[in-house]
Amino acid sequence: MKRNIYNLDLDKCAANHMPLTPLGFLERSADVYPDRVALVHGHIHYTWQDVYTRCKKLAHALSKRGIGEGNTISIMAPNVPAHFEIYFGAPMAGAVANGLNTRLDSAAVAFMLKHSETKLLIADRQYSHIIYPALQLMDKADRPTVIDIDDPTYEGGELLGEKNYEALLDEGDADFAWSWPKDEWDAISLNYTSGTTGDPKGVVYHHRGAYLNAIGNALAFNSMPAHPVYLWTLPMFHASGWCFPWTVTALAGTHVCLRKVEAEAIFKSIEKHNVTHFTAAPVVLNMLVHAPEHIKRSFKHTIEVMTAGSAPPAVLLEAMERMNFNVTHVFGGTEVFGPNMSCAWHPEWNALPKEEQAQLKARQGVRYTSLEMMQVADVDTMEELPRDGTSIGEVLMRGNVVMKGYLKNPKTTEATFRKGWYHTGDLAVRHPDGYIEVKDRLKDIIISGAENISTIEIESVLYRHPAVLEAAVVAKPDDHWGEVPCAFIELKNGASITEAEIIAHCRERMAHFKCPKKVVFGPLEKTPTGKIQKFLLREKAKLV
Amino acid sequence: MKRNIYNLDLDKCAANHMPLTPLGFLERSADVYPDRVALVHGHIHYTWQDVYTRCKKLAHALSKRGIGEGNTISIMAPNVPAHFEIYFGAPMAGAVANGLNTRLDSAAVAFMLKHSETKLLIADRQYSHIIYPALQLMDKADRPTVIDIDDPTYEGGELLGEKNYEALLDEGDADFAWSWPKDEWDAISLNYTSGTTGDPKGVVYHHRGAYLNAIGNALAFNSMPAHPVYLWTLPMFHASGWCFPWTVTALAGTHVCLRKVEAEAIFKSIEKHNVTHFTAAPVVLNMLVHAPEHIKRSFKHTIEVMTAGSAPPAVLLEAMERMNFNVTHVFGGTEVFGPNMSCAWHPEWNALPKEEQAQLKARQGVRYTSLEMMQVADVDTMEELPRDGTSIGEVLMRGNVVMKGYLKNPKTTEATFRKGWYHTGDLAVRHPDGYIEVKDRLKDIIISGAENISTIEIESVLYRHPAVLEAAVVAKPDDHWGEVPCAFIELKNGASITEAEIIAHCRERMAHFKCPKKVVFGPLEKTPTGKIQKFLLREKAKLV
Repeated sequence: MKRNIYNLDLDKCAANHMPLTPLGFLERSADVYPDRVALVHGHIHYTWQDVYTRCKKLAHALSKRGIGEGNTISIMAPNVPAHFEIYFGAPMAGAVANGLNTRLDSAAVAFMLKHSETKLLIADRQYSHIIYPALQLMDKADRPTVIDIDDPTYEGGELLGEKNYEALLDEGDADFAWSWPKDEWDAISLNYTSGTTGDPKGVVYHHRGAYLNAIGNALAFNSMPAHPVYLWTLPMFHASGWCFPWTVTALAGTHVCLRKVEAEAIFKSIEKHNVTHFTAAPVVLNMLVHAPEHIKRSFKHTIEVMTAGSAPPAVLLEAMERMNFNVTHVFGGTEVFGPNMSCAWHPEWNALPKEEQAQLKARQGVRYTSLEMMQVADVDTMEELPRDGTSIGEVLMRGNVVMKGYLKNPKTTEATFRKGWYHTGDLAVRHPDGYIEVKDRLKDIIISGAENISTIEIESVLYRHPAVLEAAVVAKPDDHWGEVPCAFIELKNGASITEAEIIAHCRERMAHFKCPKKVVFGPLEKTPTGKIQKFLLREKAKLV
Repeated sequence: MKRNIYNLDLDKCAANHMPLTPLGFLERSADVYPDRVALVHGHIHYTWQDVYTRCKKLAHALSKRGIGEGNTISIMAPNVPAHFEIYFGAPMAGAVANGLNTRLDSAAVAFMLKHSETKLLIADRQYSHIIYPALQLMDKADRPTVIDIDDPTYEGGELLGEKNYEALLDEGDADFAWSWPKDEWDAISLNYTSGTTGDPKGVVYHHRGAYLNAIGNALAFNSMPAHPVYLWTLPMFHASGWCFPWTVTALAGTHVCLRKVEAEAIFKSIEKHNVTHFTAAPVVLNMLVHAPEHIKRSFKHTIEVMTAGSAPPAVLLEAMERMNFNVTHVFGGTEVFGPNMSCAWHPEWNALPKEEQAQLKARQGVRYTSLEMMQVADVDTMEELPRDGTSIGEVLMRGNVVMKGYLKNPKTTEATFRKGWYHTGDLAVRHPDGYIEVKDRLKDIIISGAENISTIEIESVLYRHPAVLEAAVVAKPDDHWGEVPCAFIELKNGASITEAEIIAHCRERMAHFKCPKKVVFGPLEKTPTGKIQKFLLREKAKLV
């Protein structure tokens, strides 16, 4: 081996190397800004010192109960203080925080509690109707200790647990000497994806990625300033709140809790707390835009909004802007710490016509600073495709903001990471400027006469028809073309339209080979979390 | 060992783990913002695509010459494009970038070139009078290849090298496939400290710390926005330009070069390029404040300024503010990637009287988000001291923005990292709010009758006397007190004052036990880089 003077007597030691972790953000904010408001929930105002103390007490309470390294703490709750605190308190005890989707059914919850070997479950009264049957579905030996969130701002539901969350905190000391993680590769949180087929998969986040994407968010979100006031419109159980529990804490901002995501509550919260930032799916933005005039508020300051989940339509972006919301479009997934790509804005684009701006912004964009590598590649050969705006390939990612893998699922982990890349399962084109535009899920794309047809594109045309409430397009086997598009449509109340009219509507708006060859009317099957189950529709399409 | 489900089949792999490095920032900015101006020097405007291409060519040229892993590339140059490019181009070839202080003498340069085993030296014509003798001082076998920077904006000096820098770049290909560092612990740059005693020490930076402190800067610098326009008032050879070559690149900003740091050039550059940020020692800020009125400019936008090196006096801060400069006071050192602490501002402090604000801002503050741990501890026992604003102890740091160590100097490395902490050698008090205030260098503090006396405090009182040009205070042995303060003073041209008058001036302004017992008039000995050599003064003090 060649002599390298830079590796002689220059090893890592305690002074110059520590595991990266977002837990240090909390310690710092509590130390530097102890009296700033950290968390607001109804009449409750916790300072950073308060929140840090509460998280230390939680960590200590868990430790005293023998819960720590490698153990899972699950929570089913809306965006309330306990939900936020678990993302610090659990890992401060060495444990792993698992936020459960509140739209899950009892069977799925039972599966996740057992699969994650959850030791302690924190549950809000509001979900006792899900939790109670879930526990009954489990063997007694597998059932976790249950702790209730007895939130005075909510009425209803039942207390199921051993004690309530505040009493759990009282088991711990305020000056608990929590320990820094031993390794930045240790797990910090668990996030189940509610896939449309098969068992849910448990996505494991590591401390390193949580630190890095927390900062990545701050840089991507139109450069978040110090002390943002962040409104929790995004469910905290979505990809560990997309890392925002850690981002906003790093910046010593204020977390504003929101139990129920409704237009009036959002407008009121923004006004009352001078909210500067929030994140939400386009459907929530739509709700704000179409809110009745009497609940809308106008704001003097620009509110920065991050959106993900689907491309925000032009008309939505324009309406948001008129209300003084500036939207940043981001892209990612549960497996990659939430968003790790964004439609990074070019200041000169502000001079373009609004319609053109919206088109640019509808693209999923480029990698975050925190994501090392991304490419759009041929699905089979994994060769990188040209940036021509038309070649469709899979979005592949590689770097430090990719999950550890799926919990107890080495086969799927290996398949997802094959050949050294994380396979997103999303199909996209890459424009000449390097920005990607997602066209479809890999498993949904239709290949008709050797042409790729994006079901998302057809659906967006269908949604433009005034009679259409919901639409989903899937592949139907065809002897001549291989596959052809088949549309499933649920009409609006009282609306009536024929298959021929729908097809004609499409043919006016897109290339004829892309238009549905068959249209089926009726309600669309969905998962408990509201995802349309295309695999069921594909089965149906074979029969029509 | 306890079974931990989160460590089963969840190992690092190519998809989810890559070495952290700031090199990816350049690739990203070139990809996302290829046409934005990245670097300005006189009439030259390089885009991010240009800069990336130039760095790839530099890396390839080095590789083709067999220069790579573990090799050092040194540069002696003002803030010109080549100097910026070395912080990317050298490590993209696996090599280590070493910026030499332009105020060094030939003997020191010869020592550093030999000690670092420099393979290639890039030198600006302006310093041929230092470089030529330095090379003569070296054995022929140790001499590096010399490459000239033949900057058309500078007249004078001589070409000493094999060819010029632009011709070196032409040896490399624009599409060179540079390799990501193998390990984030690999060295990225070398930074000699010009200590006042003994041989210079070579501080080695790792890729991990460079990435993390580059981001740490962005967060600390009043939250830098995307696309800052950064003026290079800070010498790039100071602690790898305090990591700002990487910070500004991460944000796809614009680097504005400045060959000579003069008030007029600074004002003109700010105006011409709409500069938003710069960093400079208080002495430079002083120069701006006291510039003749006809060269001053007024600006509509606030310019963010980071300062370090000594505490900015109140009068300076107020004058800067009146000129629309907002100053952030930071603290650190060569060993810790430049600044890694800052006087993090509290918005509510803006309501305090200006004098009080300045007092708060004169403190060195709290850890950056990127520094994991900091404490003020008893010099002997290393026990953490109370936050009482009076207990003086050494500032200790621990975390990811601490150097690898000193090159080929394991003894000093070990001593500096003893017991798992980096020993800054700075003495400070910690105020009840956790902010530190540096009182002295450990080796300079005076212990008189068991009381610590800060030489910095006495010097700041001496500087307030209108006759004093420069002042330095050291310990003088004393039979009764152990040590007493002894002041060395250089008077302003034509000024005249007695020892008694100086002592009286001090006694009016500070506790009597802190006042100099002896005053010596005359010029002060300095190192070639302008540091007052207190160890020589201490020898002198014994004799007076």
